[in-house]
Amino acid sequence: MGIVGAGPAGLTLGNLLQQAGVPCVVLERGTREYIETRPRAGVIEHRAVQMLTRHGLADRLLREADRHGVCEFRVNGQAHEVDYSSLYDGQTHYVYPQQEVVRDLVGAFVDGGGDVRFGVSDVELHDIEGPAPALTWTSPDGTAERLDCSFIGGADGFHGVTRRSIPAGAIQEFSHQHGIEWLSILAEAPPSTHKVIYALHPDGFAGHMLRSATVSRYYLQVPVDDTVDNWPDERVWAELHKRFALRDSDWSLTEGRIIEKRILDMRSHVVEPMNHGNLFLLGDAAHIITPVGAKGMNLALHDAEVLAAALTEYHRTGDDSGLRSYSEVCLRRVWRAQEFSQWMVFMLHRSPEPFLSRLGQARLEHLIGSGASAGYFAQNYVGP
Amino acid sequence: MGIVGAGPAGLTLGNLLQQAGVPCVVLERGTREYIETRPRAGVIEHRAVQMLTRHGLADRLLREADRHGVCEFRVNGQAHEVDYSSLYDGQTHYVYPQQEVVRDLVGAFVDGGGDVRFGVSDVELHDIEGPAPALTWTSPDGTAERLDCSFIGGADGFHGVTRRSIPAGAIQEFSHQHGIEWLSILAEAPPSTHKVIYALHPDGFAGHMLRSATVSRYYLQVPVDDTVDNWPDERVWAELHKRFALRDSDWSLTEGRIIEKRILDMRSHVVEPMNHGNLFLLGDAAHIITPVGAKGMNLALHDAEVLAAALTEYHRTGDDSGLRSYSEVCLRRVWRAQEFSQWMVFMLHRSPEPFLSRLGQARLEHLIGSGASAGYFAQNYVGP
Repeated sequence: MGIVGAGPAGLTLGNLLQQAGVPCVVLERGTREYIETRPRAGVIEHRAVQMLTRHGLADRLLREADRHGVCEFRVNGQAHEVDYSSLYDGQTHYVYPQQEVVRDLVGAFVDGGGDVRFGVSDVELHDIEGPAPALTWTSPDGTAERLDCSFIGGADGFHGVTRRSIPAGAIQEFSHQHGIEWLSILAEAPPSTHKVIYALHPDGFAGHMLRSATVSRYYLQVPVDDTVDNWPDERVWAELHKRFALRDSDWSLTEGRIIEKRILDMRSHVVEPMNHGNLFLLGDAAHIITPVGAKGMNLALHDAEVLAAALTEYHRTGDDSGLRSYSEVCLRRVWRAQEFSQWMVFMLHRSPEPFLSRLGQARLEHLIGSGASAGYFAQNYVGP
Repeated sequence: MGIVGAGPAGLTLGNLLQQAGVPCVVLERGTREYIETRPRAGVIEHRAVQMLTRHGLADRLLREADRHGVCEFRVNGQAHEVDYSSLYDGQTHYVYPQQEVVRDLVGAFVDGGGDVRFGVSDVELHDIEGPAPALTWTSPDGTAERLDCSFIGGADGFHGVTRRSIPAGAIQEFSHQHGIEWLSILAEAPPSTHKVIYALHPDGFAGHMLRSATVSRYYLQVPVDDTVDNWPDERVWAELHKRFALRDSDWSLTEGRIIEKRILDMRSHVVEPMNHGNLFLLGDAAHIITPVGAKGMNLALHDAEVLAAALTEYHRTGDDSGLRSYSEVCLRRVWRAQEFSQWMVFMLHRSPEPFLSRLGQARLEHLIGSGASAGYFAQNYVGP
């Protein structure tokens, strides 16, 4: 088995296969230090933690992660809590930065004798439709290398080589631009809250996400085609203070050194099916989703779990039914998450069309009221 | 009190005011026969029936209407029932054609000594912002008439004169075109089902609605800008048979004489606030909604209930707080209904953008699966 990409999807697949005795090699363009420090997502669902726990991959996570089951919506200067954990069987989110997940997964894989090649370049896929699939690449010292493998796992992200190796027309691609941009900010600031905050403000959405005791992530909706250059640190903090402001409360936002600022274009992409020949796509290589709802990494972990089980079964018994249903099983969860994420995007952002903005506001009012909408939100947010 | 329009909103308002001893006159452009036979909506919510019952206006409805608490979604040739009544406190819909509601309301109003003028024309509103509001009109025999009234109820529909009498800029109008057209068909055919059917077909949505033991309503999604001329009866039936077809079932659609065919443009419109000076808008004069979710007449009845209570209180005690909150109370329900209707529209129709069509499909799969989405649907469909 050749796996391209050492992110959460590729490394989880690698670990699960290694534990099952299925030989595999993981190729990664970056260095180990790069992938172990690159900040990305930070919220893991109950279900994914259970899966990692079953495979002995969650020891540090269970020790260090904060568990969260309540989030807060701010609108018109008022705060409204939603206790989604109580609404969904007591399940919680685990707040644990993605790079820590990666660090744990790399450590476990390497400690178990796993073969991961960092700093590779020129990765190419060969004969993915035929009897002799192979990967070739250049190692950091310039050597050309080759791996013959029955199957290839494509876990190299949205811009990776694996999906692009599938012949045109063999898979269908679904794309959507949500017409919304966020400025994503990472700061060395302790969280100003013990809950994720989603704020609707006339100037646009703002989010306060939890990452660790010393680092927080914030999002600011910005005009489409805005650039980071328009957002000096002072303006970022001023805007965050304004959008999170509460009436009748002495809550305040803790500032800190900003260590990352980038523009996120809200878009979604799904390929169907998620496999072609002997190539199986996982995570962002197969689907990207907006950060709203924090589903991206969780979907990647689910793909890895389903594919590992299917490959293990095939390796042991020759039964390929799991491989044949891989795409369908994963896509069901992917489309569910996409629908939920779009439901939240619509609720949290002002539309250029005033009627649609009012509908989004009505959706939020229903959620923070006593509506059954909170049950839908809870199930989809922390589960399913 | 002058009320313009003898539809469900105007007539309910008239009856409730008459019962409370508040003098009122209802003006109607059509004849009594016209309004008592014009087919429109046909589904009344539990809550509205309770209100009519409290005022002695539901005797025949309670005797004759069918109660429904289950609907059916058809997709990929399979039928999926949703028992929304069980999911929402046992509340049901009452299937009772709108013209029968109108007939009962006219009868009760006239029998109680109510003053309703049919066949009026040239209705004009005067001094709605000032101390001497009045209505003038021409009676069927050509006489110019005038009514001085403290308040005017505008219940004359979306194209009526009352909303247009409000000065530009005094109210905000929110409009949305959903980009979807339906062919609405009424046929002298007994229902082919005991449940409302919503069918998703690759060629578009189809709906089978219940009206009475001898009449049924059907909807077919048709291309935008399509016309009735393109839909001879044979084509209508062929398309209905195709879109409702089930695999592995001998269910069939009962045909009948088609008595109405018209194109419905899916659009929504809301005015804020729903009052200006001494004019209070009700029902379609203040808001229109797609037929999806069957909210239009129910919102009209709610407006009438709220306004009647406010006017009665003012008439008795001089307390105008109900009049001042009228718009806010009604609009909360209006926006809730608009959000729900758009949620259903999105779920039931194919979008020109394939990604969005897939999201709609995922929404439906969640609803007919075991998702908490069914709770949201039930609460909003039969309630709240």
